[in-house]
Amino acid sequence: MQVINYPTPEQYATIIQRPVMDFEEIEQRVRPIMEAVKTRGDEALREYSLQFDKVAIRDIRVTPEELEQAESQLTPELKEAIQVAYQNIETFHRVQKEAVQKVETMEGVTCWRKSVAIQKVGLYIPGGTAPLFSTVLMLGIPAKLAGCEELVLCTPPNAQGQIHPAILFTANLIGIQKVYKVGGAQAIAAMTFGTESISKVYKIFGPGNQYVTAAKQLATKEGVAIDMPAGPSEVAVLADRSARPAFIAADLLSQAEHGVDSQVLLITDHPPLVEDVQKEVESQLAQLPRKEIAVKALENSRMVLTKTMDKALELVNEYAAEHLIIATDNADELADSIYNAGSVFLGHYTPESAGDYASGTNHTLPTYGFARNYSGVSLDSFIKKVTFQKITKAGIEKLGPYVEEMAAAEQLDAHKNAVTVRIKE
Amino acid sequence: MQVINYPTPEQYATIIQRPVMDFEEIEQRVRPIMEAVKTRGDEALREYSLQFDKVAIRDIRVTPEELEQAESQLTPELKEAIQVAYQNIETFHRVQKEAVQKVETMEGVTCWRKSVAIQKVGLYIPGGTAPLFSTVLMLGIPAKLAGCEELVLCTPPNAQGQIHPAILFTANLIGIQKVYKVGGAQAIAAMTFGTESISKVYKIFGPGNQYVTAAKQLATKEGVAIDMPAGPSEVAVLADRSARPAFIAADLLSQAEHGVDSQVLLITDHPPLVEDVQKEVESQLAQLPRKEIAVKALENSRMVLTKTMDKALELVNEYAAEHLIIATDNADELADSIYNAGSVFLGHYTPESAGDYASGTNHTLPTYGFARNYSGVSLDSFIKKVTFQKITKAGIEKLGPYVEEMAAAEQLDAHKNAVTVRIKE
Repeated sequence: MQVINYPTPEQYATIIQRPVMDFEEIEQRVRPIMEAVKTRGDEALREYSLQFDKVAIRDIRVTPEELEQAESQLTPELKEAIQVAYQNIETFHRVQKEAVQKVETMEGVTCWRKSVAIQKVGLYIPGGTAPLFSTVLMLGIPAKLAGCEELVLCTPPNAQGQIHPAILFTANLIGIQKVYKVGGAQAIAAMTFGTESISKVYKIFGPGNQYVTAAKQLATKEGVAIDMPAGPSEVAVLADRSARPAFIAADLLSQAEHGVDSQVLLITDHPPLVEDVQKEVESQLAQLPRKEIAVKALENSRMVLTKTMDKALELVNEYAAEHLIIATDNADELADSIYNAGSVFLGHYTPESAGDYASGTNHTLPTYGFARNYSGVSLDSFIKKVTFQKITKAGIEKLGPYVEEMAAAEQLDAHKNAVTVRIKE
Repeated sequence: MQVINYPTPEQYATIIQRPVMDFEEIEQRVRPIMEAVKTRGDEALREYSLQFDKVAIRDIRVTPEELEQAESQLTPELKEAIQVAYQNIETFHRVQKEAVQKVETMEGVTCWRKSVAIQKVGLYIPGGTAPLFSTVLMLGIPAKLAGCEELVLCTPPNAQGQIHPAILFTANLIGIQKVYKVGGAQAIAAMTFGTESISKVYKIFGPGNQYVTAAKQLATKEGVAIDMPAGPSEVAVLADRSARPAFIAADLLSQAEHGVDSQVLLITDHPPLVEDVQKEVESQLAQLPRKEIAVKALENSRMVLTKTMDKALELVNEYAAEHLIIATDNADELADSIYNAGSVFLGHYTPESAGDYASGTNHTLPTYGFARNYSGVSLDSFIKKVTFQKITKAGIEKLGPYVEEMAAAEQLDAHKNAVTVRIKE
């Protein structure tokens, strides 16, 4: 990790820089995949699965039996853990429901918003090195709470054409019945255009490699919404003299093991912490199965020493981290100064991994500085808020003249007339 | 308007079709504008204003004096109307504020969300045929309520280098001080990259012509968020035998006068209404200053007769209108069946133009079928929801083992270790 001491504000731009993403070339490779799935449907899905995942899929859709039988392949401990996580995530997302609140803005003019589920949503769960059943929880639970009618889940099968039982068990627990053995850009294409097996959806959620990310971007050009723009995962740790180097090192490494393009950042006003954390990182790193990935990620990473906590906070807000850990005794107080972050973890006993799995918050968060202008996934991501209004005859008589005045000033006479015909009646 | 009687579900796809938008060519023309403003800043803004708006801008920024003096150029009636609209819009958007709600998902595990304003936002207000001061209200009021720190407003000047006083008066009323005399794609580029005069922002709002729309799409590739994808404006009217043909005709025309690519739709189960509304449309059309625009828009438009109200509702939801007027006596009841719409106007005395200007709801709404997967602009559009969590030592001892179990199953050992080091301590 690069160490930067007492940066000037001019240096901030360099410190907050993320690994460069260039999708132009990948987009060129993904375009024909989208096109093929659009025109040839399931046939194209089978071809790409054979080509990319080296597997000949017989049945694209997971059978009800496969979903039911997954449970028997999990240890009781893992099942219990998933169920506890389920409870906490459900509890946290359930309170996000909003009651309809009618507002009489003027006598006879009543306005309100109603939350309505997006009817058809697609969840993408990556395969690859690890079975991300936690993401099934994070996307499936709010989708169910929102009341989405059609829930499609796509995930790549292994070489034997199977999906990891933890993914199937979790999907079944949530009540997701439409699970498909398709991964990569072709899965996103299937949910964008629909195929014989897989329904077209209105919004696509979930992480993925750069092909999946590029495909989601292309999906937006077809009128499909996506959860948020994607980038490599990242964590920033803000620490002072009260912090434990071993905890911080563990937090940095838990992010670094995600992928070679992950980024971790330590920002502190306490000089000895830089060296202490470095030593701890080295010693913990030695034990990690995913050591090679973490080492690469650490090359993109930085430790920054600031003169004061205020300077540190300034930099933290500039960085706009996906995950921000505030490892100080006064974390609650410092939290009030945070305005750019995806999810914030307060105090010495709140590791990021708690939120990644089971505390209740969502782990689908804005990366790559998008925490400046996007929220993480929540119940809101699965609903639209439709506005309603009802005006009485007395109401339009009162409000109408103002509308007529404004419409006339905007030279929109038909707008004005829609009021006039009602008042004149 | 095309009349379609008793369509089969197979015909729905044709009925709900919007005028085709093709941005490929326009994007090609907008790209060099974006690039020029990125590299040459204000200089490029001046050049494009001269080229496209035929005006040599001296001062890009509107002076405080210009802002203050605008008031004297408005009639008392218009000022009062704007102030009434301001009040109603403020009232409706203020109740959208959410209090922080802390949730203890497990003993010692507390999670919450906090609404934080997007720091820097840009508002685009089109010039052209009419001064859209109403859009200043619709974007500026929630931005102020949200607490956005930096508020930039760009709008094209007229040939004399001036901005319509109603736009300046409204901006001043809201407290927007940074108003710039720049329009078109170059304005969007300025807010995307920043220039000597205009600050870079994190999210851009507002309607515009196809150049502005294309520029906003390109801005998203630079990490800037936008309010929503754009399309031509539209209204659907759902009516039964209780409806007044004159009211419906006025509503259809108030949409049709927006632009030649606008679309209006009448859906009814009452056969005589089709002819009655057609007659009314013709007679009202004759009086309209923007008749030529409206006539063109009506060519893209349809009247659909259905056997039952249930069929009509089905089609209304398929269409997913930006504006939906339910012109029936039982509008409140029918409203419960609406799941795809931007804003819904209930009953015979609730014209769309009330919501366009002054009832309190926002008029920046999802068009082109995007009401299936997007909400209109609201206070939410100007904030991010940041999640926070705090876990006590006892809390991590309780929650931790489940996190360890799940992390191990996902083969993410460093994630597991971030818990283990804390429990072991």
